[in-house]
Amino acid sequence: MKALVTGSAGFIGSHLTDRLLAAGHEVIGFDNFSSGAPEFLEAARRCPAFRLVEGDLLDTGVLARALAGVDFVFHLAANADVRHGPEHPRKDLEHNTIATSNVLEGMRAHGVRRIVFSSTGSVYGEAEVFPTPESAPFPVQTSLYGASKLAAEGLISAYSAAYGFQAWIFRFVSILGERYTHGHVLDFYRQLRAHPDRLDVLGDGHQRKSYLYVQDCLDAILLAIEKAAEPVNILNLGAGEYCEVNDSIRWISERLGVSPELRYAGGARGWVGDSPWIFLDCSRMRALGWKPHLTIREGILRTLDFLERNPRILEKRP
Amino acid sequence: MKALVTGSAGFIGSHLTDRLLAAGHEVIGFDNFSSGAPEFLEAARRCPAFRLVEGDLLDTGVLARALAGVDFVFHLAANADVRHGPEHPRKDLEHNTIATSNVLEGMRAHGVRRIVFSSTGSVYGEAEVFPTPESAPFPVQTSLYGASKLAAEGLISAYSAAYGFQAWIFRFVSILGERYTHGHVLDFYRQLRAHPDRLDVLGDGHQRKSYLYVQDCLDAILLAIEKAAEPVNILNLGAGEYCEVNDSIRWISERLGVSPELRYAGGARGWVGDSPWIFLDCSRMRALGWKPHLTIREGILRTLDFLERNPRILEKRP
Repeated sequence: MKALVTGSAGFIGSHLTDRLLAAGHEVIGFDNFSSGAPEFLEAARRCPAFRLVEGDLLDTGVLARALAGVDFVFHLAANADVRHGPEHPRKDLEHNTIATSNVLEGMRAHGVRRIVFSSTGSVYGEAEVFPTPESAPFPVQTSLYGASKLAAEGLISAYSAAYGFQAWIFRFVSILGERYTHGHVLDFYRQLRAHPDRLDVLGDGHQRKSYLYVQDCLDAILLAIEKAAEPVNILNLGAGEYCEVNDSIRWISERLGVSPELRYAGGARGWVGDSPWIFLDCSRMRALGWKPHLTIREGILRTLDFLERNPRILEKRP
Repeated sequence: MKALVTGSAGFIGSHLTDRLLAAGHEVIGFDNFSSGAPEFLEAARRCPAFRLVEGDLLDTGVLARALAGVDFVFHLAANADVRHGPEHPRKDLEHNTIATSNVLEGMRAHGVRRIVFSSTGSVYGEAEVFPTPESAPFPVQTSLYGASKLAAEGLISAYSAAYGFQAWIFRFVSILGERYTHGHVLDFYRQLRAHPDRLDVLGDGHQRKSYLYVQDCLDAILLAIEKAAEPVNILNLGAGEYCEVNDSIRWISERLGVSPELRYAGGARGWVGDSPWIFLDCSRMRALGWKPHLTIREGILRTLDFLERNPRILEKRP
């Protein structure tokens, strides 16, 4: 197939690009490099089946040109910063919701009808059922990020009903692994590099979170587009376990050989819209034959290995 | 209070404006008159506590000026046309989602923190539980209209979490009564006026729908803002019953004294995104002490009486 990958220079998008190319597909990479990194596309750029379009999804002209001849869209580009959402309340709407509308309209104009979308477990708000299934009680949104992704999910589903699109919507937990560029592991690593004797922790350390290793995530996506055949396939993606923030701190401290004093900001939530417990029921995805290969701990350690080998990541703004 | 009513020249908005004025409140009416009618505001315009701002919610400058000094927003303005959504896929996004974001940003800038929002039972898509409670299983969107309203709900809830807004989100069934200007009663009435011997019916006539009389709807809204005190109050609003399209046809035909030949388009759905069964569980609203006073049949008959007395409504584009 000829695939358009939006956010192709990002953490997950660049790995997806590599795997699609390795599987013999043609890939148009699309990125505005607001958070994507050119070096993540080094391997892809050496492949003749890859072409990069530098552009923003809010620029519908560039997007239209990128879509010519494409038969599958992997829409991963997003503003993925949940924590700072309240500081710029239009950003999630623009980069997650309106950008998705632009992708859908571009697809419609070019007769492209298959889309993978990276949604988030944040659409469950503060879930009441654990592990949380895709059919959980209709949630109330608690973050601008979750709301913007939910809006994009709704648009995609409505396009399926109205125009015959087929969609695979993945509700991710936080993803870990090589090319990871933001999130708590980076925050902690950065702090402990600067001052190994102390660690500032948002919340009370008892927030329960689930994570997934990036290649496990991609295994699931690539399997689901083969096996899940509904017009709209909504699939949770996470590990079959969760950990406390304190577990993560222990694993990271052990690996770095440090014993920091832990300074908790306090409260059950790390920030506005933070969910004290994220743990997704992934039986739908598992019923397709998928299972993750790395534990959360292993995913965190791989992420630390990557950060050790790539100190430049630390130079990016926190 | 000093209230801003968006969509104040519309069907529900104009009645709300009248009732707020009658209760002694100050009202700023906001409307772009795309579907609102100046004559619906005739009574309001005679009241010194009413001021009309003609503007579009996509024009943030006009909106900002209208919000000065306001302490409560009733956000009813919307593109309420579900059926023709697929013909203009950006319209719902712009007039329902982005417009709501503009209202919220305007409120934030002016320190206004209380909002009533007219959402829709369409956010349940094709529900699987009847009557459908607010906590129904997380639905898949089936219409651009429902998706755009769901997106607006999400934004409002996220603003509550991020900025301390208090919100009352009402998921309406179709509303009937005086000043009704679009929907199946008007479609049928218009047809039977033109040719009493035949009636074209979308779908198979067995679609099950619920309706609510406009004053019952307003009773609920005005009661809920007094009694429901959560940061985000999500409330279904409908009659405690439903009817088939065929029931409605019978009641309308009897009132008009006609016996049309019924010509069904066929299929369980009248159009893309039409839900074959809408019936909302309104126990949350009833627990606050509300109940509707008119049956669906009585609401339909009142609507017919209004149409008989206001033939100008028929002149509007179908």
